[in-house]
Amino acid sequence: LADAVTVHLVGAGPGDPDFLTVRAHRLLSQADVVVHDRLVDPRVLELVPALAERIDVGKRPGWSGTQDSINGLLISLGSGGGSDRVIVRLKGGDPFVFGRGGEEAAALANAGVPYEVVPGLSSAIAGPASAGIPVTHRGVSASVTVVAGHRQGHDDTDWAALARVGGTIVVLMGVEHRGAIAQELLDGGLDPSTPVALIERATWESQRTLRATLGELGHVSVVAPAIIVIGEVADMALVGHSVSDLILATD
Amino acid sequence: LADAVTVHLVGAGPGDPDFLTVRAHRLLSQADVVVHDRLVDPRVLELVPALAERIDVGKRPGWSGTQDSINGLLISLGSGGGSDRVIVRLKGGDPFVFGRGGEEAAALANAGVPYEVVPGLSSAIAGPASAGIPVTHRGVSASVTVVAGHRQGHDDTDWAALARVGGTIVVLMGVEHRGAIAQELLDGGLDPSTPVALIERATWESQRTLRATLGELGHVSVVAPAIIVIGEVADMALVGHSVSDLILATD
Repeated sequence: LADAVTVHLVGAGPGDPDFLTVRAHRLLSQADVVVHDRLVDPRVLELVPALAERIDVGKRPGWSGTQDSINGLLISLGSGGGSDRVIVRLKGGDPFVFGRGGEEAAALANAGVPYEVVPGLSSAIAGPASAGIPVTHRGVSASVTVVAGHRQGHDDTDWAALARVGGTIVVLMGVEHRGAIAQELLDGGLDPSTPVALIERATWESQRTLRATLGELGHVSVVAPAIIVIGEVADMALVGHSVSDLILATD
Repeated sequence: LADAVTVHLVGAGPGDPDFLTVRAHRLLSQADVVVHDRLVDPRVLELVPALAERIDVGKRPGWSGTQDSINGLLISLGSGGGSDRVIVRLKGGDPFVFGRGGEEAAALANAGVPYEVVPGLSSAIAGPASAGIPVTHRGVSASVTVVAGHRQGHDDTDWAALARVGGTIVVLMGVEHRGAIAQELLDGGLDPSTPVALIERATWESQRTLRATLGELGHVSVVAPAIIVIGEVADMALVGHSVSDLILATD
């Protein structure tokens, strides 16, 4: 397209604006249009210039937004001329980890609209870290599998095989089906005493971490969205405590 | 410790300084001491003030650095007084994804030294992204497993089970044992035609991507360090092409 504008598919990370990448921070600060979902931390949106257009495509009454309509919106913005405009499609976490960034990138490519993918911290890793949990740890866990739990029972994941891999399992969007997920992993051979951590609203100011065992997972009272960590590392709590925050300029 | 200084365990991400987090960028710009490994992109070290002390603890002639000696160095720096000093332990990628950040955090905690873990983009996700590969993609891959390949045959990973999980497999530090890894996954039932991508020096200026199949993996000529992506997504190449880079201020 002769008059095309780059659409930047930008990962917002898990919430705290300090955990944006330098490039994401710069793009947001110079944005003319930001297309975002419901689950973006308000502190991140505060970086966007006051006069920029914000388009919320999250699920809500009155918006019948399917992925197709979001793709169409991005194509329209990127075809619209004005090559000095900065167009940001902001996605929680990383665009390429259950973010549908690949679908949006493919749609833009097919329409001849230039795009750039800007990776972000995935909540699957930074979420557990904010609760002091390393997803791998020498002598404890030599792999980490990140899996979506919202289609449990209808997806292509072999949970029984996953139970036998031997490393950490991080389930995103798994709160609703946590009982069924636990049962499949138990059936696959994981011990009911396997440690589990549930991190509600990771890195948000309202973050809360719950600890349980795999046998208890189905009965834990937890509010979505939450990240579920399953494996020996879930017992760890390397949260640290900084004494020098005050001396750092906040530029 | 009364006189302790916070040791910041900071993820450097995959290389390009634009992919540092805002917090990592700020800490490096204000650092008094930076302890780093060999594999840090020189462009990242350029952010450190000229007068700061740089301590290279990477493997090299004359340095007999074990993990214990690195832990001891960090404890010593954090116990040394001068609470206005900014001490950064810089690690490639993310400290908690095969970064031994958990070990260093635990050592500091045991010694009573305050610390902070600053997550970084893991090369396991941002590396494939830089080659246009989404590690998950709706309808193609519903999970991603990140596993270290350098201890293949001596670790606790059940590669045959991993072959049956059904999602993307990302192998870090797997170049040396790529033939044996491929064989275990084939024995576990993966098809020899399964797509494979190998990304050398991801996000560095010298990045190079090779494509192959699982059947060919053992014979691919590749230079370490490289990230190995195994699964249907490895065929994708959503690299985009930005037209608006020039108009972004580089602050």
